[in-house]
Amino acid sequence: MLFSNNKKIKNIKSLPGFLELNPADQMVFNDYKKKIAETYEKYGFIPLDNATVERSEILFAKAGGDTEKEIYRIKKGDNDLALRFDLTVPLARYVAANYNEITFPFRRYQIEKVFRGERPQKGRFREFYQCDIDIVGEGFLDLKNDAEVASIIYSIFSKLNIGPFIIKINNRKILTGFLESLDLEKESEDILRIIDKLEKIGKEKVKTTLKDLKISDEKISKIFDLINIGGSNKEILSKLSEQDMDNSKFEEGLYELKKVIDFLALFNIPSDYYKIDLQTVRGLDYYTGTVYETFSLDYPEFGSICSGGRYENLTESYTDKKLPGVGVSIGLTRLFSQLKSAGAIDSSVKSVADLLVIPITENMEVPVRIANDLRRQDIKTEIFLEDKPIKKKFNYADKKGYEYVLIIGDDEISKGEYTIKNMKNGEQKSVPEKEIVGLIKSLRYKKS
Amino acid sequence: MLFSNNKKIKNIKSLPGFLELNPADQMVFNDYKKKIAETYEKYGFIPLDNATVERSEILFAKAGGDTEKEIYRIKKGDNDLALRFDLTVPLARYVAANYNEITFPFRRYQIEKVFRGERPQKGRFREFYQCDIDIVGEGFLDLKNDAEVASIIYSIFSKLNIGPFIIKINNRKILTGFLESLDLEKESEDILRIIDKLEKIGKEKVKTTLKDLKISDEKISKIFDLINIGGSNKEILSKLSEQDMDNSKFEEGLYELKKVIDFLALFNIPSDYYKIDLQTVRGLDYYTGTVYETFSLDYPEFGSICSGGRYENLTESYTDKKLPGVGVSIGLTRLFSQLKSAGAIDSSVKSVADLLVIPITENMEVPVRIANDLRRQDIKTEIFLEDKPIKKKFNYADKKGYEYVLIIGDDEISKGEYTIKNMKNGEQKSVPEKEIVGLIKSLRYKKS
Repeated sequence: MLFSNNKKIKNIKSLPGFLELNPADQMVFNDYKKKIAETYEKYGFIPLDNATVERSEILFAKAGGDTEKEIYRIKKGDNDLALRFDLTVPLARYVAANYNEITFPFRRYQIEKVFRGERPQKGRFREFYQCDIDIVGEGFLDLKNDAEVASIIYSIFSKLNIGPFIIKINNRKILTGFLESLDLEKESEDILRIIDKLEKIGKEKVKTTLKDLKISDEKISKIFDLINIGGSNKEILSKLSEQDMDNSKFEEGLYELKKVIDFLALFNIPSDYYKIDLQTVRGLDYYTGTVYETFSLDYPEFGSICSGGRYENLTESYTDKKLPGVGVSIGLTRLFSQLKSAGAIDSSVKSVADLLVIPITENMEVPVRIANDLRRQDIKTEIFLEDKPIKKKFNYADKKGYEYVLIIGDDEISKGEYTIKNMKNGEQKSVPEKEIVGLIKSLRYKKS
Repeated sequence: MLFSNNKKIKNIKSLPGFLELNPADQMVFNDYKKKIAETYEKYGFIPLDNATVERSEILFAKAGGDTEKEIYRIKKGDNDLALRFDLTVPLARYVAANYNEITFPFRRYQIEKVFRGERPQKGRFREFYQCDIDIVGEGFLDLKNDAEVASIIYSIFSKLNIGPFIIKINNRKILTGFLESLDLEKESEDILRIIDKLEKIGKEKVKTTLKDLKISDEKISKIFDLINIGGSNKEILSKLSEQDMDNSKFEEGLYELKKVIDFLALFNIPSDYYKIDLQTVRGLDYYTGTVYETFSLDYPEFGSICSGGRYENLTESYTDKKLPGVGVSIGLTRLFSQLKSAGAIDSSVKSVADLLVIPITENMEVPVRIANDLRRQDIKTEIFLEDKPIKKKFNYADKKGYEYVLIIGDDEISKGEYTIKNMKNGEQKSVPEKEIVGLIKSLRYKKS
């Protein structure tokens, strides 16, 4: 029997690590989601929306280390299921399963929730939105895609209005090739994972951790000489060329990075919004070429707000086909909560509608007709339907943050003129019915 | 280690009961979602997006019977969690937890996935979208809201273009009051649940099931006399008035139904789109007043495509506050899959973008510049970035269902005129750069 349990449940707070926004913040959050989706679509990415739940086997084939421990597992009858921990593994499964129907390059976006049972801490979530794009090629994927992806990152963060930012770009082959030349091929993955933490744990800690791997001081110092190379993009590329190293992977990485930087100049990104950074290596060995990280200049403490890169083969665990790709992900829940903590979210708008109609009459026909007219003309309109004292009606308008209300009383109805009241300064104006739409539109326009 | 497992996983199909749409269908589905959200917002409903996961205790307090068995439960450390099975229970928990911050009447919409581990069968899903609105009052909620909710149902299905439909309306108090007058108060919930299955199992089966409850033939026949009352809304209401019954619940239900029907005439719904149906009672004892079900006239076999009603107290399990509400839910995943099976989904559009730019040149500067111009003017534009033979480029445009492509070759660049090709009939037209946007816009306009 539903709703008939008389025992009250005491713990009704939202779960720690599961973000629950108030309506005002939710509207800003949805606006971010919408802008991101619109931008992805503007570049021709099609939406994908696969299941939140996968067979555990699918997820465990690709999860490793910490991720594996964080998977939420569901047992239901004979089914061993789990909640997805990212959007890449389900994409890989989807592409492998639908290989014959897909037109490559396959460009898809996905803005969905993923789940990780991390220990809750500031800025970490157990359920959060990822906003991903990937371009998956068949056999081969042109490097121009790597540049286009960076241009899409630029386009999105310009629209989200979060201030200046920088997209840091590198190619993983440069450092892995360099490590090969130092005879550190075996330790390569571990070394990249350690260098990825440079910003977080500092240079000294990275050095001692590398020493723990039994890497000589001389080699450590050579590694730092490489990743410390700075200057303009042109200078970095030229210093890398001068390394005169006989390693094909290094050469390949350098060639690719150069190509991507050349293309970037075409792709409409102002030059101070991207930069080669040889310390950007990404922790996941998943990436095999171009890598990106994005930092807000106003809030560098946020860490990377959009990361990604190129991978050799998306569907390795599922098929023998070679499907290389490039993609990025925005951790929107985390970014939003960081912006909120930094006071950068304007949540002054508490109401989704543009206007509240306040009937002060028994005759509901006119208020409903006018509200429907407004809606037809694309003005979001709420009618206050409760039979309450006038004061309470205005209280409601105030609390919901309405800037304008339309008052419809019996006097107004007999005159055919209605009162628009500005709730901020109390100004009132009498308007004939047929001018209401135009006036509201002009007021809305002025506001935005 | 990620992506380094060489064992291939064989079972990569999507899970049964978990809908995974192809891109063309997904775009139609997203368009439905968008239209529903826009309509909800047009009536001033604010978005809510709470967690997919709840404490099991919260869900089990409100789930009963079949629902309880269907809950997906997650064990993670000491946490006993579960996936939500509807959007109403999380709403109730949210309203109780945030009571002091909420402005009532609280109007919220939510379009999200819910989870039920049902046995998969045609038209039944384990993960599916619900599109809900609820209006929750504090202490009291005016009956005009019940009429407005019906008008929103009308507005949505008109926009979804699924053909004619009928909103069946009733008030549960009429039948429960009637049953009280027959001394069947104790059996009332069971009887309503059985009558709810009338359409599915037929009159004879309902009668024998009622007999199993030890209800006399005379009373069964009286029940059928009541629920068989037909005619126009006015006729039904007048026949109900004539029942001359001394039962306050019956009278209350009749008064409320009459009020709601009166208001409906104001709320802009054509009269052939709604109808009193005394057999519409809803299976859930959760509802205490107005109830709605919506049926497509072209596809009556779909069953109700939008149902809901009024409830006395949303948060009974969590607080002592009295918070009555009214709401409806559209089971969008199910509806979409039914429409798809019926051949009513037009999934001819396979590409989200309006235009594909095909560069036939090494000079990428011009194609990228033109594509960015088009995007700035709100034209979704994909550039084909792969270095492939010309034939393959056009193949891609064909497969992705592009109606128009913009060809940019070296000749075109030197002339400053570019070729727009209609992929359906092969027609080509040469256009100066500054006229491209206008032409594409006019072509897009003609299409829609």
